[in-house]
Amino acid sequence: MASRPSTRVVADLPLTPPTGMRDHLPEAARVRASLASRLLGLFQRYGYERVMTPAFEYADVLERGLELDRRDVLRFVEPETGEVALLRPDITPQIARIVATRLSDRPAPWRLCYHGTMLRRRRGRARKSRALSQAGVECVGFGGLGADLEVIGLAAEACALVGLPGVRVELGQVGLGRLLLAEVPEAARAPVAEALASKDAHALEARLREAKVPARQRRRVLGLVDLYGERPVLGRARRRYKDAESRAALDELARVWDGLAERGLEPQLGVDLGELRGHAYYTGVSFALLAEGPGEPLGGGGRYDRLLGRFGRPAPATGFGLDVGHVLWALEAAGRPWRPSRPLRLAELGAPAELVAGLRDAGVEVAALPESVGDRALGFARAWGYDGVLGAGELRRASDGKRRALEDGVGGVLALRDWLAEAHAPKGAKG
Amino acid sequence: MASRPSTRVVADLPLTPPTGMRDHLPEAARVRASLASRLLGLFQRYGYERVMTPAFEYADVLERGLELDRRDVLRFVEPETGEVALLRPDITPQIARIVATRLSDRPAPWRLCYHGTMLRRRRGRARKSRALSQAGVECVGFGGLGADLEVIGLAAEACALVGLPGVRVELGQVGLGRLLLAEVPEAARAPVAEALASKDAHALEARLREAKVPARQRRRVLGLVDLYGERPVLGRARRRYKDAESRAALDELARVWDGLAERGLEPQLGVDLGELRGHAYYTGVSFALLAEGPGEPLGGGGRYDRLLGRFGRPAPATGFGLDVGHVLWALEAAGRPWRPSRPLRLAELGAPAELVAGLRDAGVEVAALPESVGDRALGFARAWGYDGVLGAGELRRASDGKRRALEDGVGGVLALRDWLAEAHAPKGAKG
Repeated sequence: MASRPSTRVVADLPLTPPTGMRDHLPEAARVRASLASRLLGLFQRYGYERVMTPAFEYADVLERGLELDRRDVLRFVEPETGEVALLRPDITPQIARIVATRLSDRPAPWRLCYHGTMLRRRRGRARKSRALSQAGVECVGFGGLGADLEVIGLAAEACALVGLPGVRVELGQVGLGRLLLAEVPEAARAPVAEALASKDAHALEARLREAKVPARQRRRVLGLVDLYGERPVLGRARRRYKDAESRAALDELARVWDGLAERGLEPQLGVDLGELRGHAYYTGVSFALLAEGPGEPLGGGGRYDRLLGRFGRPAPATGFGLDVGHVLWALEAAGRPWRPSRPLRLAELGAPAELVAGLRDAGVEVAALPESVGDRALGFARAWGYDGVLGAGELRRASDGKRRALEDGVGGVLALRDWLAEAHAPKGAKG
Repeated sequence: MASRPSTRVVADLPLTPPTGMRDHLPEAARVRASLASRLLGLFQRYGYERVMTPAFEYADVLERGLELDRRDVLRFVEPETGEVALLRPDITPQIARIVATRLSDRPAPWRLCYHGTMLRRRRGRARKSRALSQAGVECVGFGGLGADLEVIGLAAEACALVGLPGVRVELGQVGLGRLLLAEVPEAARAPVAEALASKDAHALEARLREAKVPARQRRRVLGLVDLYGERPVLGRARRRYKDAESRAALDELARVWDGLAERGLEPQLGVDLGELRGHAYYTGVSFALLAEGPGEPLGGGGRYDRLLGRFGRPAPATGFGLDVGHVLWALEAAGRPWRPSRPLRLAELGAPAELVAGLRDAGVEVAALPESVGDRALGFARAWGYDGVLGAGELRRASDGKRRALEDGVGGVLALRDWLAEAHAPKGAKG
């Protein structure tokens, strides 16, 4: 209702978004939207169709697809039903739900893509939440090598398309490590996986001894600790693990490596058989995309052939997701910040309405200033990144305030585009 | 960690999103994204720059800007801080927060736009949640008639741009009604506003008598009940309410009407001085956008000159938001469903890799089928809305299975675009 609230003391709470949440201001939001749109465009050209899923789901539904540590997600009680809901930490289980329910009558393969925000709570002492914006694909009902190659190749192509052609694609195969971890008592598996991932043979041996793992099994797990690097790692692993299941897992990985090499990706490839952390739903070859900058993978993915079955419709599946913020960070670090092409932008004060309308129709961004701005129009244009100020009969360049008389309507303004940009360039700045 | 979960009984909970949440499947998601992008493009041509804000906020922050009935929002405890957070029911207070904090050093006016999901809980017996996707603008630091005309004109132009040129723009002025409601005891204001909004003079009088409003004040409130319709309503109101404050409110509204009429919008205009419900933060002229279909306004907005002050930086402001789902609904109802232009889409089985890559570079969407699909390729193409199946040396039309031999690589395929579309048209379907 229309009553006024009591006046509040403004300083009683910092006016910030919740921990881990971020606002994206004008320039940053434009950059982010443009990058995501470029990625989705690529995914769509491979036949991945966009879907949109809710920001939260019933915990009972999402937890079919995620083996979640309850501390890792943000949970709350949904007031209508009293059911526990959670802000999605991952979109893949939602896609699995959609394929298994509303799209189950369509023929395989299902190729779906998405872009959305999810909330992860990071492990570690602080266990901070972080909202991340992820763009990714899921390829369901298409088993085997072909789909693995398509999805990993597409991930590398996506990075190259936006300016990271050298991104490292580090392949993993959870199959092998899981067989070995199964020989470790359950309570010790997490610390063992941590020690393995950090390639710390000393710590790994200590963890295994603490867990009273017998010598033979200990040696088998310890054997994983140096299995990272290039293609020869796969040969070493093959000589070390000769049982049929390990062989099958390693052969699958070798076929993926060779298929990617055939596509010219070998210079970017790496392998790490000791990386067993991360999404628990992977069942086969997985991969992480690495580049300088964010200090975490840009994204990753892999095969998850058992997830769909948990939603009642078994099907092989593979996919990947890219953290849009991390990709932007890596582009900055590589000296190739993402700069979407942007239209001409003009502040306007006193220009004819018809000219303004014509410019907007031509795609120019024109912000009308109130008369009260007066002499401060140039300052406004500079502060907000406008190229110039359009007045009655003249155009002023934002960078240096120089004027040009206007003739020929819309065409005349568009013809001044280069002149407007000139003073931004080093040469113009000197002149 | 890598342990497998216990097998769950699949039928124990319906695999649906929470109440009021929706999945958007491939075609619907494409339509929705395309409409939102068209709207944002228009807003940007008026100088509104896109920002992105978090899906939830601390209640203490959002509640500065919203006078919320606690039952109307979805609240939960944010685990890091123990603070109460809420899923945003509105983006405007977030924009106010941004302007008052992170953008406060930029010169006025601030023109910002957004597209995002928010969660509203509807009043009524069921009080159901509904996730809605809203695209809108906020114009801050630009007071007076100019900004009102820009924002209302832009709302009408946005509707026209997407195919609703005749949308009704119903103007309101909360100022007048609030003055009168102030004479009604607080507890009775909500039922009085309800009776007013439904133009039920009988119920209105009953509510006023129950609240023991004296006869003179009762007549003043009752006088609002028939003040809706066209321009002459403003003259009638002026004769009925002669105090200075009422006059000022009515004069402001008359200037907005006349300014919009000057822009050719008069055939779409209406006025309703008895509508006092809705967003409590409006302070002046407000408006609702009405069209057949959704049974609710497509969107609306208005002037909210006191909101920014609650975030520590007083400034006049106005804006509006459009419910993307309602706009799509109204377009359907008007027989003009939103159909984004879509690229050529081909399923592929056995075509040369170079041709496929070339087509994708040319913007064609090509989905590679696994060999196992074999004869079912045409069925796949039809079920997923592909135009044809690209094979080794031939292209088959999805609609009727007719074949064409392929020559001339990418250009040859693109030249068959019209042939592919032909059978969709009534004439082709007969032949």
